[in-house]
Amino acid sequence: MTTPVKTPPERQIQGTRVVGSRPSRVDAWEKVVGKAIFGPDVSLPRMAHAKILRSPHAHARIVRLDTRRAEALDGVYAVATADDLPQAADRTERVGEGNVNYKYMRDNTFASDKVLYQGHPIVAVAARTPQIAEQALGLIDVEYELLEPVLDVRRAMAEDAPILHEEMRTRSLAGIGECPSNIASHFQFLKGDPDRAFAEADVVVERIFETTTVHQGYLEPHAAVAVWDAGGTLTIYTTTQGAFDIRNQVHELLHHPLAKIVVVPTEVGGAFGGKNLGYVEVPAAILARKAGRPVKLVMTTAEVLSATGPSSGAWIRAKMGATRDGRIVAAEAELCYEAGAYPGSSVGSGANCIWAGYEIPNGRIDGYDVVVNKPRIGSYRAPGATPSTFAGEAVVDELAEKLGLDPIEFRLRNVVRHGSERLNGAKFEHIAAREVLEAVRDHPHYRASLERGEGSLRRGRGVAMGYWGNWGGRSSVTLSVNDDGTVSLIMGSVDITGTRTSIAMQAAEALGLDLAQIRPAMGDTQSTGYSDTSGGSRTTIATGTAAVVAARDVIAQMRQRAAILWDTEVDQVRYEAGVFTHARDGATMTFAEVAGQLGATGGAVRGKGDVDVRRWGGAFGAHIADVEVDIETGRVRLLRYTAVQDVGRAIHPGQVEGQMQGGAAQGIGWALYEGYAYDEQGHLLNPNFLDYKMPTMLDIPPIETLILEIPYPEHPYGVRGVGENPIVPPPAAIANAIYRATGARQTRLPMTPARILESMGVI
Amino acid sequence: MTTPVKTPPERQIQGTRVVGSRPSRVDAWEKVVGKAIFGPDVSLPRMAHAKILRSPHAHARIVRLDTRRAEALDGVYAVATADDLPQAADRTERVGEGNVNYKYMRDNTFASDKVLYQGHPIVAVAARTPQIAEQALGLIDVEYELLEPVLDVRRAMAEDAPILHEEMRTRSLAGIGECPSNIASHFQFLKGDPDRAFAEADVVVERIFETTTVHQGYLEPHAAVAVWDAGGTLTIYTTTQGAFDIRNQVHELLHHPLAKIVVVPTEVGGAFGGKNLGYVEVPAAILARKAGRPVKLVMTTAEVLSATGPSSGAWIRAKMGATRDGRIVAAEAELCYEAGAYPGSSVGSGANCIWAGYEIPNGRIDGYDVVVNKPRIGSYRAPGATPSTFAGEAVVDELAEKLGLDPIEFRLRNVVRHGSERLNGAKFEHIAAREVLEAVRDHPHYRASLERGEGSLRRGRGVAMGYWGNWGGRSSVTLSVNDDGTVSLIMGSVDITGTRTSIAMQAAEALGLDLAQIRPAMGDTQSTGYSDTSGGSRTTIATGTAAVVAARDVIAQMRQRAAILWDTEVDQVRYEAGVFTHARDGATMTFAEVAGQLGATGGAVRGKGDVDVRRWGGAFGAHIADVEVDIETGRVRLLRYTAVQDVGRAIHPGQVEGQMQGGAAQGIGWALYEGYAYDEQGHLLNPNFLDYKMPTMLDIPPIETLILEIPYPEHPYGVRGVGENPIVPPPAAIANAIYRATGARQTRLPMTPARILESMGVI
Repeated sequence: MTTPVKTPPERQIQGTRVVGSRPSRVDAWEKVVGKAIFGPDVSLPRMAHAKILRSPHAHARIVRLDTRRAEALDGVYAVATADDLPQAADRTERVGEGNVNYKYMRDNTFASDKVLYQGHPIVAVAARTPQIAEQALGLIDVEYELLEPVLDVRRAMAEDAPILHEEMRTRSLAGIGECPSNIASHFQFLKGDPDRAFAEADVVVERIFETTTVHQGYLEPHAAVAVWDAGGTLTIYTTTQGAFDIRNQVHELLHHPLAKIVVVPTEVGGAFGGKNLGYVEVPAAILARKAGRPVKLVMTTAEVLSATGPSSGAWIRAKMGATRDGRIVAAEAELCYEAGAYPGSSVGSGANCIWAGYEIPNGRIDGYDVVVNKPRIGSYRAPGATPSTFAGEAVVDELAEKLGLDPIEFRLRNVVRHGSERLNGAKFEHIAAREVLEAVRDHPHYRASLERGEGSLRRGRGVAMGYWGNWGGRSSVTLSVNDDGTVSLIMGSVDITGTRTSIAMQAAEALGLDLAQIRPAMGDTQSTGYSDTSGGSRTTIATGTAAVVAARDVIAQMRQRAAILWDTEVDQVRYEAGVFTHARDGATMTFAEVAGQLGATGGAVRGKGDVDVRRWGGAFGAHIADVEVDIETGRVRLLRYTAVQDVGRAIHPGQVEGQMQGGAAQGIGWALYEGYAYDEQGHLLNPNFLDYKMPTMLDIPPIETLILEIPYPEHPYGVRGVGENPIVPPPAAIANAIYRATGARQTRLPMTPARILESMGVI
Repeated sequence: MTTPVKTPPERQIQGTRVVGSRPSRVDAWEKVVGKAIFGPDVSLPRMAHAKILRSPHAHARIVRLDTRRAEALDGVYAVATADDLPQAADRTERVGEGNVNYKYMRDNTFASDKVLYQGHPIVAVAARTPQIAEQALGLIDVEYELLEPVLDVRRAMAEDAPILHEEMRTRSLAGIGECPSNIASHFQFLKGDPDRAFAEADVVVERIFETTTVHQGYLEPHAAVAVWDAGGTLTIYTTTQGAFDIRNQVHELLHHPLAKIVVVPTEVGGAFGGKNLGYVEVPAAILARKAGRPVKLVMTTAEVLSATGPSSGAWIRAKMGATRDGRIVAAEAELCYEAGAYPGSSVGSGANCIWAGYEIPNGRIDGYDVVVNKPRIGSYRAPGATPSTFAGEAVVDELAEKLGLDPIEFRLRNVVRHGSERLNGAKFEHIAAREVLEAVRDHPHYRASLERGEGSLRRGRGVAMGYWGNWGGRSSVTLSVNDDGTVSLIMGSVDITGTRTSIAMQAAEALGLDLAQIRPAMGDTQSTGYSDTSGGSRTTIATGTAAVVAARDVIAQMRQRAAILWDTEVDQVRYEAGVFTHARDGATMTFAEVAGQLGATGGAVRGKGDVDVRRWGGAFGAHIADVEVDIETGRVRLLRYTAVQDVGRAIHPGQVEGQMQGGAAQGIGWALYEGYAYDEQGHLLNPNFLDYKMPTMLDIPPIETLILEIPYPEHPYGVRGVGENPIVPPPAAIANAIYRATGARQTRLPMTPARILESMGVI
């Protein structure tokens, strides 16, 4: 597998020493030898263990709840229910790529009157041992009145559907609906006159696509330990992508002041968007307060799969029209996304990402956020974009075929550029969609011929382009200069992707020091400034910017110190690559030499970077998939797979490749294997990693990567963000490849052998 | 007991809202309910327990050391000796009011060739349990060649004394001596012509005084837990006054980069200067590295008393001459201070403090730092000042008596003022010695008549004045504004005296907020900037200044945010008492309202204060003691005790009174009860709190306090520092009172009944 980095010469950033290199990750040793502390590893003296009683029903009214027998069990310290939660504000705030409404979050923490999905929490118990807590759950009496569940997004949108929230009315541009509905909201992007444009198009393609609920599949379950001190400060150790967001959520649900909540993030064993929202922190906190001791709450895998925040299943109608010369003239899509039990699907970013790469003069996209009796969805890596891109890129591929054009050539004829106006009304700036498509066109993989398969094996090659908008947001970094010239770096961002390394590298670069001189660490919420969650592919961008700001602050202060030592003016002191130079006499001092004199020149030097990055670059990627389909069994084997992506600038190319490969691997899971299976009563049939099939190393071919570096001009090093884009193209690329192999269009995820055979008319 | 605060009207600071109030300490709840985590409370999973083999001899050569049998014991994880320590730099650095030479500190961590006091560490063992570690110590074979010990400072100065350090030569202004000596250094202050002035004086008094080694007597022993991560970062949880100083010490002794050492300070159960230097951290760190697991090392009380850093015993010759009209014309003192096993006694500050309150036109003070076979002394609350003031104020009292003057009147005739030139060459600035003496003169206690005792009981009243120079130094504070308007405060200073409260009060005052809105916490060495140890009465001064600087930084940023929200220029935004006002239209927003909009106006707001306070105010105090002496038994009972002190400004008068009372109580311990007792071989005879007699509540009368507030003009709130001064006057005041009761001058501490009878010629 080759991993070149391709930067157009005119856009190369010159002369970085640390940025662009491939040092060992600073957290490597801890993780390799198994000493890193993940969420479930946290242990405090006198700690109690908690378990949660969950609804066995997908939709029911709680008629009676009696916890007295559980409370009386020897070894039980505390019991918590919805009665322990104050009313929460009906306010929605962005958390990463998703959002949270605190009123709904409260109901999702403990059900009060109704349960809305199998696994919905009702009661939490803390006891001396996990076994006693489990035993106590069996002593809780709950009487339910069963209600009909609704599990399918289209069924849920029907007027006669069972209603989850009696008070819910559809919000749309037209106002607020009059009748109860499962459609929480409806929005529309409209550009030009799509109806007229479709009427005038030479070729039109229209299809309906369906995707199912999938889970991020992190191996480390949600886990938290909560402890209160006697002065009323609550400390929570938890595995999360955003310590400050968890602090906000606990603050909103417990009405406890922010300054008296300290969230300490642990190492994270996988998150992919699923650890932006808290599930275990508030129950653990309530139990800890009641029990007067630390309380640990660790989910089982079954709880993680049935009751955290998987991705939206979706129903999508996609239609596109073009002229004979290969110009797209109109596009239209209807995106119906499952939100799970409470509003908040990823339909918004699904709508933003579909066909983002193409100039579309006339278009209409309708998005529907729909509640169903499944767990409330969370964010999953480029949330919403994978289903809509699966639909959108299949239609583009079909249109290209009907026009007799190479799929890349057709895309290049319609590709967006700097200044293009989007369907959502925004304008693109500093994008490199064309460069990505050209890199695919010129790639050895795309140019290689594909041999015919033997016997019942058919081969095909597919391509797809994906877009993710990335994010900037708020980040804080502090750099403290130590007397021996080393620098301690504290960041408010949680490290879920090698962040400590990529941020320390940017700090080292900006400071002109070696990476070994910087020791980065994650801060807790009291030791650093507010930082948004590590999501939206924002962290290397925004926390990197904060590190550069902090580094410049350090250099400014260190130059003043050097000026004091030389008894000169600060403008006489130059600094470059770790060395201060006296402008007049050429005398020099190293960074470490000046650091050794901090005590004599005014005290500590700390550089501070508190930023809110409001401008960042979206990024395109395109994948090439070669598949071999056994037309007798429907089995799909990936023969070769290549991911091309414009990352702006790869701070650590090895980590960037890892993100591209990991994202592609997860996208392959969506494409071929993964999906929640429910029975008609809404019972999840595969809540374990044996029955919920994720691809393993044996299912994934080596994934070739080609990093394009088209620097985003407003980031100090040109970074655009990397992590989410690569999950977007795989289902579409693989579906298009399967079509080329079999002649059958694929419209449902996952593309299981049975569905492929069905699409071929075999069964 | 009355506790008025007296501020001369012309010097009152107007309009503070929080400063000067008496809120509950923020750490009160945790401590009252027993939940605060002190050093010995820290516990980590898989933790091993360490014990230290110590020398039973006061002076011996180690001929053979064999740890193999201990290493072979089942359950022993690691053994550490001096061989595990790299060579350390022969460099001396200030730590609090004391200093540390790293070469000597290395030898004091583990003896290599020689042991220099009973209790000198030789080997440390980590094992599964403390019992196994203790058992392992018994399996270590050490062969000693006994040497004659020297325990008395005058004997140690003799030319024929046994020599502790063969390579040691006396350093003095004259250069470096030629012969081995136990006198590590000799210095001299000289002003005018004391010999001629003495010859011309009308009255001269000269006496020799002796004090013995005393210990700070903190109840919490030294305790640390050390743990290494796989990436080479060493984390140490320890009870210390200065996390950064411990980090420095570990850095110097282990040659490990500062950025890879994280020191986490725990709550401190008493320190008083004794926890500036580390004793357990380096052995625990070495053992933890070797054992591959966390290692906890907790001292026993016997180890604390015999092998940490008590105060210098001293031999002092003091001589003073005056004219008949009550003018001091000359003074001379010879201060010989025991350093213990390694150089570093507190003779320097002893010399700086003797007679600091008096204009002395001609004077000479000789100071000698002398090693003896006792533990290396540490800092103990106003180190060195209590012995020298005991001597100096006794001589002043005697001179006043010989001149027929009231002791306060004599002092007032000679009192120093702004601009006075000191014996050490410095000049006083902004002092209030006169005000202190006048407050004593006018105090109801001093004006009250003292009734005669009955039978063998004799009563007397004594006064003494004490000086302590205080300190500023380096401190760091960070204030983080939370979205709900609360503010998290992190300080680099360890809280040993209610510091979190007094720093948060200064921050609240400067921010115009209520104290309840600020949550202060101690930072570890990676989450905050370098801060000097909490010693030298510096913390409320310097860390308070850092808090004010940080608060001003916050206000400047918050005004910018308010300007963004109002779409106006920042100079149009006024801020006062928690409210922003638009200068043009009078619109207002609260601090919390602007805080709630940080996300919309640019991200986190953190204020940073990194200061090195180079100017601070020294402070005077004077105590009045009424005693009753039983001339048949020598027993002394304190009838009434009053402490008067200029504190500049009492941030929290209740805490200031606590410091004054605590310091006086410890000074009373020095005066009447405490002292190390050694046999001739240098074995400590009273290494426990039963035989080492400290005063209890039953021995101490209510201590009345009078706080004078003469603001130091260069501190934002006028603070001078409080904690150390009140330990300085008690032995002198009580000795002078005993003289007034019995007619016998006291020249030895502690003034035990036997010594008092001896001074009276009774025995």
